[in-house]
Amino acid sequence: MKSIINPKREDWSVLLQRPTQKVENLEDTVNQVFDDVKRNGDKAISKYTQLFDGVILDSNIVTRTSFEKALKEISTELKIAINRAKDNIEKFHLTQKTEKVEVETTQGVICWQEKRPIEKIGLYIPGGTAPLFSTVLMLAIPAKIAGCKEIILCTPPNKEGNIANEILYTAELCGITKIFKVGGIQAIAGLTFGTETIPKVYKIFGPGNQFVTVAKQLATKFGVAIDMPAGPSELLVVADDSANASYVASDLLSQAEHGSDSQVILVSTSKDLIEEVQMEITKQIKELPRKDMAEKAISNSKFIYLESDEDAMDLINDYAPEHFIICTKNEDFYLDNIINAGSVFIGNYTPESAGDYASGTNHTLPTNGFSKSYSGVNLDSFNKSITFQKISKEGLINIGNTIELMAEAEGLQAHKNAVSIRLKDILPGEVGISNIENQ
Amino acid sequence: MKSIINPKREDWSVLLQRPTQKVENLEDTVNQVFDDVKRNGDKAISKYTQLFDGVILDSNIVTRTSFEKALKEISTELKIAINRAKDNIEKFHLTQKTEKVEVETTQGVICWQEKRPIEKIGLYIPGGTAPLFSTVLMLAIPAKIAGCKEIILCTPPNKEGNIANEILYTAELCGITKIFKVGGIQAIAGLTFGTETIPKVYKIFGPGNQFVTVAKQLATKFGVAIDMPAGPSELLVVADDSANASYVASDLLSQAEHGSDSQVILVSTSKDLIEEVQMEITKQIKELPRKDMAEKAISNSKFIYLESDEDAMDLINDYAPEHFIICTKNEDFYLDNIINAGSVFIGNYTPESAGDYASGTNHTLPTNGFSKSYSGVNLDSFNKSITFQKISKEGLINIGNTIELMAEAEGLQAHKNAVSIRLKDILPGEVGISNIENQ
Repeated sequence: MKSIINPKREDWSVLLQRPTQKVENLEDTVNQVFDDVKRNGDKAISKYTQLFDGVILDSNIVTRTSFEKALKEISTELKIAINRAKDNIEKFHLTQKTEKVEVETTQGVICWQEKRPIEKIGLYIPGGTAPLFSTVLMLAIPAKIAGCKEIILCTPPNKEGNIANEILYTAELCGITKIFKVGGIQAIAGLTFGTETIPKVYKIFGPGNQFVTVAKQLATKFGVAIDMPAGPSELLVVADDSANASYVASDLLSQAEHGSDSQVILVSTSKDLIEEVQMEITKQIKELPRKDMAEKAISNSKFIYLESDEDAMDLINDYAPEHFIICTKNEDFYLDNIINAGSVFIGNYTPESAGDYASGTNHTLPTNGFSKSYSGVNLDSFNKSITFQKISKEGLINIGNTIELMAEAEGLQAHKNAVSIRLKDILPGEVGISNIENQ
Repeated sequence: MKSIINPKREDWSVLLQRPTQKVENLEDTVNQVFDDVKRNGDKAISKYTQLFDGVILDSNIVTRTSFEKALKEISTELKIAINRAKDNIEKFHLTQKTEKVEVETTQGVICWQEKRPIEKIGLYIPGGTAPLFSTVLMLAIPAKIAGCKEIILCTPPNKEGNIANEILYTAELCGITKIFKVGGIQAIAGLTFGTETIPKVYKIFGPGNQFVTVAKQLATKFGVAIDMPAGPSELLVVADDSANASYVASDLLSQAEHGSDSQVILVSTSKDLIEEVQMEITKQIKELPRKDMAEKAISNSKFIYLESDEDAMDLINDYAPEHFIICTKNEDFYLDNIINAGSVFIGNYTPESAGDYASGTNHTLPTNGFSKSYSGVNLDSFNKSITFQKISKEGLINIGNTIELMAEAEGLQAHKNAVSIRLKDILPGEVGISNIENQ
């Protein structure tokens, strides 16, 4: 746990450097699997499922029986919890619906913008030790609200060839029933090219390990969109003497338990608080089942003291954290001035885990500084905006000359002609470009 | 000009295939320039400007004098035209502003979403025979409305080392004054890494040739976002007997003059109209200065007859055109059912060139079938959505157990603990997970 007192501005970029992710060396493997899946479809998928997941499946497709088994086996209290989270996530994403916007820019020229759902999407849910059913909620709920027609979920099978009950229950609760027991690179390749069983999709969402990340990047080369580039999860807390050190420590640890490459940063205008938080971490970390992972992440964590809120704010916007917790007296200052962050948590009773599970906000967020240019997953991630325009004869009289002059100046005569040919019919008296100043 | 009568559904994908773009062979060159610019900054930029643009510049930076010269030399009528276009584009993009959305998902749990501008962006404007000043309007106006702080424009110099007056005039009109005389791969590399003169940006916008396209794709690997993947421009017109064949022909030709790889498609439920349009094209094409280019594009164009509007609609959504013109009696059917298109033009007096220049909609649109998953450039292209949440003690009591149960089920004990440690203080009587059914 390293404390840094008043670092100089010129040292911020080195201080806040994220661990370098080397992706180049994975590209060969990813290219090879893509090539194979493109050529051999399900046969290749089976091969890699056997190779990477260590299981031979009769079929990729999750059966009705598995859904029913999941429904039976999950405890009532977990079901209630998942249902409550679903309600909140639904409420929040429903507020993000937008209506068509329309304006008559010039008399007779009506322009509008409408949203349409992306028709076919793929959701990737990682496997591993814990079933990330919360991510099913975060992706499936806005996809359903947007109205995506075909929603495909891929997730790797365990050694017994099964998918966790929690994932199946949550998926079905959200109305997703096309689930494939396929993980890793081969899942992304399957969604990219389509196979005999897996449909080709237009956009792929969801987290994953480095292989999945590189595979998603490669998918974009084949015309498939992705939600965002991924990196290790991260949390930055800004806190002063008004914060509760044990709460701050618990938030930093909740981030640290994700993995040894998680990023954990505390920025404070109080040296005392930094010290207290460090003591609390030492105390709390002992109790954690994922202690080893958390310890590694904490050993790379940064505790940064800065004298002014202004400096702290600049440093935070420079870093552009995925998760940003504000526990300070003057929270309004930080709320007004935060520009680069994925999701913001305010006050002593708003732990990051609330947003990870159940408050309603989405937990699929830009890491690795991408909050400088990317939004987290939201309703519009599942929509496209289309523009429309309808021009009347009068409208074309009003803007026709403007178009003709600009097209002429860009050397695009046929663009001009598409207007002139119409204007000649509407205004048979005029010849060529009429005098714009007479309009 | 090939007419296809009632093509079978299974043949649509081959019929509508776009010309393959081979990008692999450009990657070596692009990688090399990126590497050089990353290492050697402006020195490398100068080298490539000399190599690719054939000019040695004293400085990359456009001077005050050049702006003043542009202001003097552009004709008053073109200035008026550009100003009118600007007004319309501004009006339309202003309607796209959205307010903060907020909801109390559970009592005491307040979640909201707000947009913040991307702070630093780069606009790329291609050079070449004609100065594409209209693209300056399309990118600079929404960037200014969004509130982007640093807007950098890069565009290649001509052989005399100058930038077209129209580009300089339009840029200054839109409030862009940081212009660099740098084009091609080296411009994208400069914006990606930053040099002594060119600032590093977070997102790059704008069209370009294949080199620029590959360079933008490479930029994403270095953490820079881009507006969208690019491809040759394309237009699909659906028209029936109510359409005016000469207008339809003029629209198809306005697309065809962009280049020999432009895509031009007419879909019609009237064989007579197809024939008339073909005759009109033969007549109109003779007069065009860019006749050679247009002829090549027209020779690859498709004129597709289909018996029903339903079939036509399915084919159009399959193709996902960048530009889509509707000139049919039952335009409402197409408006209601179009899902995949960049921008839609309705009726006999709405030529595509209106949207290219002056009606108000944006002309930076998804090509190559990307309208299945991408929006055209719009106000939100320059914004990010950030989510916020503030939970009261009461709120945490209400959703705390839900979070604890879900975190526990995902095996993330520290996530659970961040809630438990707070609940223990708020509800000192309770121990561990309280009975969720008692809430």
